[in-house]
Amino acid sequence: MRAAVYHGPKDVRIEEVADPRIEQPGDVIIKMITTSMCGSDLYLYNGEVEELVAPGHTTLGHEICGEVVEVGSAVNRFAVGDRVTFPYSVSCGRCQSCRVGQTAHCLTSGKAIYGFGTAFGDLGGSHAEYVRSPLADDHLEHVPDSLPDDVVPFLSCNLPAAAIAVHAAEIELTDTVAVVGCGATGLLALDLIRRHTNATVYAFDPVPFRRKRAEVLGAVPMDASADAVDTSIQAVLDATHGLGVHKVVEFAGRGDAFDLSVALARPGGTISGGGVYLERDHPVSLFDMHFKNLRLVLNGFANAHTAQRHAMQLIENNVIDPTAVLTHRVSLSELPSAAEQFTTREEGFLKALITP
Amino acid sequence: MRAAVYHGPKDVRIEEVADPRIEQPGDVIIKMITTSMCGSDLYLYNGEVEELVAPGHTTLGHEICGEVVEVGSAVNRFAVGDRVTFPYSVSCGRCQSCRVGQTAHCLTSGKAIYGFGTAFGDLGGSHAEYVRSPLADDHLEHVPDSLPDDVVPFLSCNLPAAAIAVHAAEIELTDTVAVVGCGATGLLALDLIRRHTNATVYAFDPVPFRRKRAEVLGAVPMDASADAVDTSIQAVLDATHGLGVHKVVEFAGRGDAFDLSVALARPGGTISGGGVYLERDHPVSLFDMHFKNLRLVLNGFANAHTAQRHAMQLIENNVIDPTAVLTHRVSLSELPSAAEQFTTREEGFLKALITP
Repeated sequence: MRAAVYHGPKDVRIEEVADPRIEQPGDVIIKMITTSMCGSDLYLYNGEVEELVAPGHTTLGHEICGEVVEVGSAVNRFAVGDRVTFPYSVSCGRCQSCRVGQTAHCLTSGKAIYGFGTAFGDLGGSHAEYVRSPLADDHLEHVPDSLPDDVVPFLSCNLPAAAIAVHAAEIELTDTVAVVGCGATGLLALDLIRRHTNATVYAFDPVPFRRKRAEVLGAVPMDASADAVDTSIQAVLDATHGLGVHKVVEFAGRGDAFDLSVALARPGGTISGGGVYLERDHPVSLFDMHFKNLRLVLNGFANAHTAQRHAMQLIENNVIDPTAVLTHRVSLSELPSAAEQFTTREEGFLKALITP
Repeated sequence: MRAAVYHGPKDVRIEEVADPRIEQPGDVIIKMITTSMCGSDLYLYNGEVEELVAPGHTTLGHEICGEVVEVGSAVNRFAVGDRVTFPYSVSCGRCQSCRVGQTAHCLTSGKAIYGFGTAFGDLGGSHAEYVRSPLADDHLEHVPDSLPDDVVPFLSCNLPAAAIAVHAAEIELTDTVAVVGCGATGLLALDLIRRHTNATVYAFDPVPFRRKRAEVLGAVPMDASADAVDTSIQAVLDATHGLGVHKVVEFAGRGDAFDLSVALARPGGTISGGGVYLERDHPVSLFDMHFKNLRLVLNGFANAHTAQRHAMQLIENNVIDPTAVLTHRVSLSELPSAAEQFTTREEGFLKALITP
């Protein structure tokens, strides 16, 4: 089959690889109907996590709408022809971690993530024609007929992650909120946040196009580029009696976004962090964090399975249309160029749907 | 009057200074019955916050049992002869911050703290014969007759801070807990924690004497000294299926204690930090914090006023006896030597009560 194989930083090639096959009785083979790229894929694509991957072997992708084409002998819930999606990480539903909702930390799967390299289970990714899904009965999900193919990849990661982060922020009707990072997931979160508060929502991003999208969603756009961010922070402080915002929802996933979140939160405020951070020694102001009595809830390694059904309902009940952040539709062979547009934050690019 | 005046690092002198006097109609003058030192006083004592203090002028101390000796013309709730205590910070009870319980962040007082230097309102401290208390009607508290003098200074800071941190940790009956830092406040917190869970409580501290005290309270003592801490962490991981503890309550107030807390918490776990951190650029592993989906609630700048009545009830109802952590009773003139014992963590020293 054809798949996106990582060869090195910014070197992903669409090439022929061996078809996945049933390896365990609980496996299912899924044929990709449509897939997409997540911001976290860029860490791999850019070569920022070389220690996790095997160049020439690792395939990428963890978001999917697919069709079951083969089932293992122990699979009960799925049959050939079923339309399915998976949360980006594999969970058994039965271990100590899964039972308390920490499905991303499944002890059985060992924190296995589709398309995330050798360090996370060495599972094939969804940027391929087929993918093998282990422990399928426990973590695969049927897709309701009411959901069109295009929205389904959002159920693997982006929309559950957004819902988890917004829920964890515990936003009240009159809370002033800042969203830090207005990529696809940040904008989905922003869309949900607007239903939780009637107060001002500030949307921070360095990219003008993304800020415009945030403005369309009813937020006040704030320039987060390096030479403007201090002015933007001051503007928020000036508008909030010097206090800052009640809640920050962060989806940028970099140390500077963490610092920005701390700077924006008021005393007793909450930072709900959905970002994926790679920094292992980021200089943080513990002084500010304690002095402000901050509450931080970090869900960058989102327990997507716990919120996947909720995410389906958000779409079915017309609360949110994730395709609003879909800006490109490409074929699998065009994936490398789409990845390049994504990582350079090209004007007009938010998220690409990828079809075979 | 006589007061403890800061002159430089480890140079606190008991000397004659001007008596405090009524400056505003809402002021009260309090005669010290008994006072004590808090771990946070050591930051000043050791000269770690020189930018906050005025050597030769700043007096120390923010914990007190006192008697009202003079009241301003606008004071209604207090009369000469009343026995009182105050939370360590002055709050008006009426501003945006106070009304939502962020009393340490009072906008009216400007975050004024007794005995904490020019940066925090330049208020005199309780390590003196008299202290002026502004906005008295709003933040001073009468002490119930049932409480002996000795327990009252604990109501200014230590016990409310311990209660706030334990409450914020949301400990369940079967949660495994780690206490990081077994000084006086950490031990008070540990005493409360033991009533919230029947599971194992691990007590981390580098000082053998403190660990012994924690063991008496029913905790498993864990050596947190630099050459033993990795072994101690591994022992906790081994005992918790490799996961770590559900909740960490931290009262050490240093960056390494923050790191230790992150290392001990399990995925989805909570760190309730009561520590006062000075670090403005402490290298933190954002990777670990997000990858574990941690919840952090930092209350080092504790809103003591909100928990002061609760703290009184904890003593009145015999839930906790704070004098259990009282190891020394000294006169005001002996305060400098007691401060030295405190900061060097002298064997057998936890907390000193200071009487005139």
